[in-house]
Amino acid sequence: MQDIEKILGFIVEIEKLKDVHRKTKPVGLDRFENSAEHSWHVCLTAFMLKDFANEEIDINRVIKMLLIHDLGEIDAGDTIIYASETSENKAEEAAGVRRLLNLLPAGMVDELMALWHEFESGDTADSRFAKAIDRVPPLLHNLHGGGHSWNTHGVTKEKVFSVNQRIEAGSKELWSVIRTKLEGAVDAGILK
Amino acid sequence: MQDIEKILGFIVEIEKLKDVHRKTKPVGLDRFENSAEHSWHVCLTAFMLKDFANEEIDINRVIKMLLIHDLGEIDAGDTIIYASETSENKAEEAAGVRRLLNLLPAGMVDELMALWHEFESGDTADSRFAKAIDRVPPLLHNLHGGGHSWNTHGVTKEKVFSVNQRIEAGSKELWSVIRTKLEGAVDAGILK
Repeated sequence: MQDIEKILGFIVEIEKLKDVHRKTKPVGLDRFENSAEHSWHVCLTAFMLKDFANEEIDINRVIKMLLIHDLGEIDAGDTIIYASETSENKAEEAAGVRRLLNLLPAGMVDELMALWHEFESGDTADSRFAKAIDRVPPLLHNLHGGGHSWNTHGVTKEKVFSVNQRIEAGSKELWSVIRTKLEGAVDAGILK
Repeated sequence: MQDIEKILGFIVEIEKLKDVHRKTKPVGLDRFENSAEHSWHVCLTAFMLKDFANEEIDINRVIKMLLIHDLGEIDAGDTIIYASETSENKAEEAAGVRRLLNLLPAGMVDELMALWHEFESGDTADSRFAKAIDRVPPLLHNLHGGGHSWNTHGVTKEKVFSVNQRIEAGSKELWSVIRTKLEGAVDAGILK
């Protein structure tokens, strides 16, 4: 019973992810996306695209990674993917994740913390695919939304191609489709 | 490539779940929850509480069920759990899920449609647990938020206990903890 109480405390605390605002707007909506709904969206994106991973992946682990991948933003806030990630920011996120996980029964913490670090590292088949997937919905938001976030933040086409080319490490086929769409956005003048 | 294009079309279409508004407000936020962020929240709730299921469950199937369980609301809208579910509403949701899944490559549709129907039926170990979990966050919203949704919609304590007692079918221990919290809400006068 005490363990259930702890878990419910965690469940209430992570509500705060619904109030962390990202830099893109969902297609068709005139408001910024929050990191909780983003987390749902990338889980389903991963599930639907699992057969296009370059390597053999465990989709169940990928989904668990994506369910928790943004929890660090509750304490550290969201950082646009085109900003340089600082080690200070990453340390703040890791500390934030640990603070949240420490609300859970002791036996649950280590596995989840390791899963979060694995995602951040991007150096396993599962995390390479998860990180590739994490980049897709914000690109779709820009592609279907006049490049709003690229233009607001002055993100150049060179930056968009170089940063997102890492999708290729998770799925060559997915990157090929996305790259074509980005080239179309350049031609259409929404990515400059 | 054509399959990836179809999947990306689906991914864009389901953005609309971020604009389906529910009847409770996340703890600490003065706005209604949307069904996309709710879907993320119940997936993590299920994962954290998996060891308290009455029966042997496959948590990976439970999470997949919960990722898609509200997709029908994109076409049919959200219905408060205390309203009588009509067969018309359920048929509208099923048709909505089928419309969305039909955007995907043909080979992906049947398994997902069956998973959605299994959740709705609530007559397997996985769906009993998933349906129990689905009820938990809205109760926490009310318990931590002055019973706002119960009071707005005139939901009596008798109704809250009778509807949510079904949590017991998924997890007796979880229901025991929640029941105690609801009794506390009655004592505190926020559940009448």
